[in-house]
Parts: sequence; C-alpha cells; structure tokens
Amino acid sequence: MANFVKDFRCTLCNKIYNELEVVYTCPSCGEKGILEIEYDYKAMRKFVDKCYFRTNPDFSMWRYHHLMAIENKHIQKMLKIGGTPLYKANHLHKSVGIKSLYIKDEGQNPSGSLKDRASGVAVLKAIEKGYKTISCSSTGNAASSLACHAARMGLKTLIFVPKRAPIGKVNQLSIYGSNVVMVDGNYKETYELSKKAIDHYGYYNRNAAINPYLVEGKKTVALEIAEQLDFSPTDWVAVSVGDGCTIAGVYKGFYDFYMLGLIDKIPKLLGVQSSGCSPFVTAFETKKSIVEAEENSIADSISVGIPRNPVKAWDAVEKSNGSWVSVSDDDILKYMRKLGTKEGIFGEPAGVAAIAGVRKAVTLGIISPIESVTVIMTGNGLKDPKSVEKAINPPVLVKNDFKALEHYLKEKGEN
Amino acid sequence: MANFVKDFRCTLCNKIYNELEVVYTCPSCGEKGILEIEYDYKAMRKFVDKCYFRTNPDFSMWRYHHLMAIENKHIQKMLKIGGTPLYKANHLHKSVGIKSLYIKDEGQNPSGSLKDRASGVAVLKAIEKGYKTISCSSTGNAASSLACHAARMGLKTLIFVPKRAPIGKVNQLSIYGSNVVMVDGNYKETYELSKKAIDHYGYYNRNAAINPYLVEGKKTVALEIAEQLDFSPTDWVAVSVGDGCTIAGVYKGFYDFYMLGLIDKIPKLLGVQSSGCSPFVTAFETKKSIVEAEENSIADSISVGIPRNPVKAWDAVEKSNGSWVSVSDDDILKYMRKLGTKEGIFGEPAGVAAIAGVRKAVTLGIISPIESVTVIMTGNGLKDPKSVEKAINPPVLVKNDFKALEHYLKEKGEN
Repeated sequence: MANFVKDFRCTLCNKIYNELEVVYTCPSCGEKGILEIEYDYKAMRKFVDKCYFRTNPDFSMWRYHHLMAIENKHIQKMLKIGGTPLYKANHLHKSVGIKSLYIKDEGQNPSGSLKDRASGVAVLKAIEKGYKTISCSSTGNAASSLACHAARMGLKTLIFVPKRAPIGKVNQLSIYGSNVVMVDGNYKETYELSKKAIDHYGYYNRNAAINPYLVEGKKTVALEIAEQLDFSPTDWVAVSVGDGCTIAGVYKGFYDFYMLGLIDKIPKLLGVQSSGCSPFVTAFETKKSIVEAEENSIADSISVGIPRNPVKAWDAVEKSNGSWVSVSDDDILKYMRKLGTKEGIFGEPAGVAAIAGVRKAVTLGIISPIESVTVIMTGNGLKDPKSVEKAINPPVLVKNDFKALEHYLKEKGEN
Repeated sequence: MANFVKDFRCTLCNKIYNELEVVYTCPSCGEKGILEIEYDYKAMRKFVDKCYFRTNPDFSMWRYHHLMAIENKHIQKMLKIGGTPLYKANHLHKSVGIKSLYIKDEGQNPSGSLKDRASGVAVLKAIEKGYKTISCSSTGNAASSLACHAARMGLKTLIFVPKRAPIGKVNQLSIYGSNVVMVDGNYKETYELSKKAIDHYGYYNRNAAINPYLVEGKKTVALEIAEQLDFSPTDWVAVSVGDGCTIAGVYKGFYDFYMLGLIDKIPKLLGVQSSGCSPFVTAFETKKSIVEAEENSIADSISVGIPRNPVKAWDAVEKSNGSWVSVSDDDILKYMRKLGTKEGIFGEPAGVAAIAGVRKAVTLGIISPIESVTVIMTGNGLKDPKSVEKAINPPVLVKNDFKALEHYLKEKGEN
C-alpha cells in the first residue's frame, strides 16, 4: 500500500517526529501535545486524483484508505463505515432561512454515529500494532462505535462511561460484548480513571484527542461531502463541538482535498455548542482563553466541560474563516422535531444542535441567506430515547371504536 | 420509463386485471384476494441484464425501479433506501454450526428497518395517484418507515398502533410529525379500526398485504442479496415472518431474477417465527390450515396472530423447497447477544429470530452444515430498548477510584 505519511507534528511545540518515534502524543509536551499527521501531498497528487475516485468501487470510507495512514489488509472484514447519504433538504432550508441546505446523515453508520469513522481506524490500528484489548472513555457514541467494530474484528474492549450516559447507548455496549465500567463521576473524572487504567494495563487507547490516527477516520466525512457535491462543497459546513476532534477532522479532510487540488476552497466551519456547555463559544465571544464550563445540556455527545482537543478545533474554525455559536436545549428539541417532520431524518440532540446553530448564525448575520450550508448530522436519534421523550408529546390512548376515533380526529382538527 | 407490468393476478381466484381496474385487492374476492403484479419478463430481459447493473450508478433500491412498477420522477427527492450491506460472518457461522453465513443488515435503512423498502414505494404510489394523506396500522416498523418517507416527501400520515408497540418506535412516529392513533386494543383490533378509517376518509392505504405495490419494494432486498453475491445467492435465505409480506417479497425478488436468467436457482427460504406466535409453523408441523395464534413474543414485529398474507408467504416457502421453524424468546435474546458480540451488529428481536431459526434448522437437520445461508436482519436493535434490557445485564456503578476499579476488574476475571 502506498503510504504518503510525511511526519507527525506536535500541534503545541511544532516538533516533528516519524511514525516509529510516537505512540499517542508529543513526547516533549505530554498529553496536551496532540500530534497531527502530515502528508506528502506532492507524491499523493500523482496517485489520488478525480479519476482515482471515479474508478474506485468501494463506497465505504475505506475508499480513502490511501489518505488515512492505515494498512488496508483487514479492511475487507470490517463493517461498512461511511458512504452515508448527503441529502439536499426538500423543505427544511426554508425554516432555517437559507437557499440551499444539505444534511450529511451520519446516523446511518453501523453503530449509528460519525464516531464509527474514528473507531474503525482505531480498531485497524490496534490490530496493526498487535493489541488484543482497546479502551476509551466516552459519553456514548465513541464507546458504542468502538465496541461495535472491535466485536466484529475479535478485539476485547474496556469502556469507561460516566453515570449520566444515556441508557440506550450503554445497552449497545453490552450487546457488543464490551466490558463496561460505569464510573460514579462526570465525564472528566471518567476520562482520568480510564487514562490510569489504560496506562496500567497497557491497552490500546482510543481516546480521540490523544490518538493521532482517529482524526484520519473522522476527516473522511469531509472527503465524502466534497465528493458527493462533485468537488464543490457548500459555503459553510456546520458541526456540533464537544472535545473538538470532529470539527478538527472535518477541517483536515477539506484541507487534504484542497492540498490535492481537488477543491478550490475550504468551506467556512460553523462550530456549534449547547449553551449549557459552551467553552469554545465563550472563549470566542469573550476573546479569552478556553476555560472549564458547566456540563448541562441534553446534547450529551457534546457536553464536554474541558475540551480535550482545543487547539485543533480552534484552528479549524479560525483557518476556515468560520465562526462559533451556541444554542439552547429548547432550540435543539425544536430542530429535532423540524428535521424529522420536514425531512424524515431522526437526529440525535448533538446532531440537530448544528441545524439550530445554522438558524442562529443566519439570524446573527454570520451566514447569509444566499449561502449554501452542509450540516453534519452526527448521530441517530434512536440512540437517545430520553431526549426524544422531551421533544414530543406521547400519543393518547384511543378507544377501539370508530365513533371515539372520529371524535379524537375532530378534536385534533385533522378531519 | 419502461414499464414491464403485464397484469395483476388475484392469488386466490387467479383472475387477471390491468392496472386501471384495481386499487388494492381483487374486486371479486375482496380483502383476501391479494393481487400479484406480473411482469413481461421477455420484454424486461432485453433491457435488464448484468450490464444494466454494472453500469447503474444508483446504489439505493431505486436502481431496480424498472422492476418495481413505479414511475421514477420523484426518486431523486427520496431518502436513500436499500443498498444495505451484506456481511459475511467473521465468527458467528461457527456458533450457528454452518460453513458460510451472510447477514443482510436492513437496520441500516433510513428509519432502521427493511420496511423502508415498502414504505418508499407506498409514498411514491400515493404521490403518483394524487393522495395527500397515507395511512396504515402497524406494530411499529411499517409505521415508522411510512412516517419517515412521507415526511420527506411532504405527505401527511395517520398511523394506527396497538398499545403494546415499543415506545422507541412510537416516539419515532411523533418525531416524523405523524398523527398517531394509539388504539386500546391488540394488533387485530388496531388493523380493523384503521381499515374503517382509511375507507371512510379516503386515505391511501399502506397496509402491506392489501397494497399490491409494497411487495415490489420488499423484493429489492432479494435483488440486492443476489447482486451482492455476484448472482450466486446462498443455498438458503432465512427471514422472520409475521404477516408474511416480507418473505413473499423475498421470494418475488429471487423469482424475478430467476425469470430474467440472472440467477440459476431460487434459494430455499426458511420462514422463522417466535414460538410465542407461530401460526405458519403450527400449520406446517400439523399439516393443517393456518389458524389464529396467541401474540406472545418479545419479537413484536412478527407477533401477528392472524397473518394477513398467508397465501403468498406459504407459497414462497413451498415453491422454494424451504421450511418453517419457530424459536423461543430466550433463543432470540441469546442470538441478539451473539450477533452483537461476534459481528458488531445490533439487531432487533424479529431480526435475530432468523439467526436463532437457522441454528434450530441446523440442529433439526433441515439445513446441512455445508450449506450457505443468508439471514435478513430486518431491523435495528436501537428501535426496541425494552427488549435489549432483557438481553443484557446493566453495568454496575464503579467508584471513581483506581483501587475500586482494579478490584472490580479482578472480580470480573478480566485482569
């Protein structure tokens, strides 16, 4: 396999390493020295062009394996990750107040979220490096996706979840046979305990900020968006932000295609957070450094008080000339209903937060009504039944009798 | 668009109609006179060959629209239905006791089940025929898929569910903006009430047995399986059975390809029911007519005491030289865990019932260990959190302390 990796660069001190010198983060800077994999785009350009894609019969994210710093020998045995649909909105763009809206439906991945892209890479890397157990801490999607793909490939998983993780996501872990440690603490405490355990037992670490390969999986969502829009991406791409790894990945994907000469511009990135947990937005609005925030939102996937990947996420928005907004839980629930009702897509709170964010950005004049926007719907609404219950009114029980039915429908103004 | 429909034949009296003479069932036989759409295979053969598929860039079920008796003008606006992955088992075939096992993961459809295939066709037909509201009664998957695709296309839905429908599925309906009527009765009573209402208000009827077009959507799962296996399908295809419409669709799909000369044989069909509700299996074992059965299984999608499509389902198994088996709820839960743990696929009870059925058929000598089998995983496990809770033990809360963690892992025998 052609491997176009040039080096690993520390995003803090800019020191350069080769692949064999590093495992997770920068040896000089420690855990905050998150590494960036850099490619030899000149060499890659000779190989990866539009023809490469036109003749590529693989419609999963593995179609990009030459851009992902992975070996391809176990790919055939993996579940199908990526290749998710990009829908042009039939109706929702009107509610949002823009002319052209696209929705990238990541809920259609095997475990129901975008995190499958990162976990798939983590599992392949663990196999490449000879690990038998892989571990992470997660509020849910990263964990369930890891459990899913590890199960398929015969790896063990040890997964740390905070006690507030939605039960649907935790049950998924058990169905996949994961060894689940539910920690009596918040996300931060759960993360710290997982770190100690992973070091102590020598497991492979799938924590997204730490592991430099995971972003190479996440970026494929941007590669797909660009390809699905015939290499002319929308003016903006909106994505919700927790740790910051996903938006960093989205930027990396567009950057790759830009460096390969496949797209003319990198879309402006809109980082969206919940107002109940918005460390990036607060820093953006106050023009100060990122400080720890409350974790108080129904959008559990993005309720991260101390983002683990602040530098890459911040740079992604800045370099793309993008912006940051926060949205309330009420707006999130409103756009969960709107997305379902107008487009037939059932998104999880963290995903629909991005649509609510686009609406807010339009209201604030950040996004112009004539600009085009792609929203990344990060996960499937089925994963979080409790939030859904807050978004809707449950149906009332109707007597098994036609007169009762007629009365019920008349009352509802339906007939 | 090339339309290869020859006629509509009543499966009871064999009377022939043209498309304009019928709406749902046979005018002579009434509701039990379920119609079969018959094609002019000779004409179709000239157009639909292996080259047609090789050069077809659409990887949704709409790639088969020439075989589906539908117009294609609104297809572009629909969600992506079908094109679901077919996985070769990495490990599970060993537990099942066969050499070669494939899993068709229908949980990857937009609303999370195979029913999207039928609902997509229903929505297009409703639009073709000028209806504004579409209605059905369903234990869940048919309903949520209808609500999903109708929402996308701007149609209203009136959906009747029995009170035992799983809450996750009912919530999905509300998210899609459906007008849900939860009937204080069982599936049969719900169906009867919906029938009265649909007649009375003049809505389009998506009840699967009644509507002759829906099987044309369902059959695409078989077309995909055949194509994904390079036109050499497995010896057996196993699918769980409720009303009987899905297995009838599976047969129809293979029959189409057989008549087109694209496959050499129609796979033997294994119809699987839950022992808590097994009218077909009872009839098969006692060699008597189908009689009403109890509805007592966690596999709610197939808990149908009076199957609405008995003739087509029965014929499908018989003509394919297949067989019938029933499985216990315990077996269903066991194979839900096994499918997740061994393959990373999270199936709903009705879906995993088919795997449990394959194991039973191997034990009974119906399927030989050297035969190959495809199992149709009809729906996503996320849709039914209550059943999942029965399948697994919830994780215990671990103190946020490394010593406590070490103790916990030692107790579990993990380290």
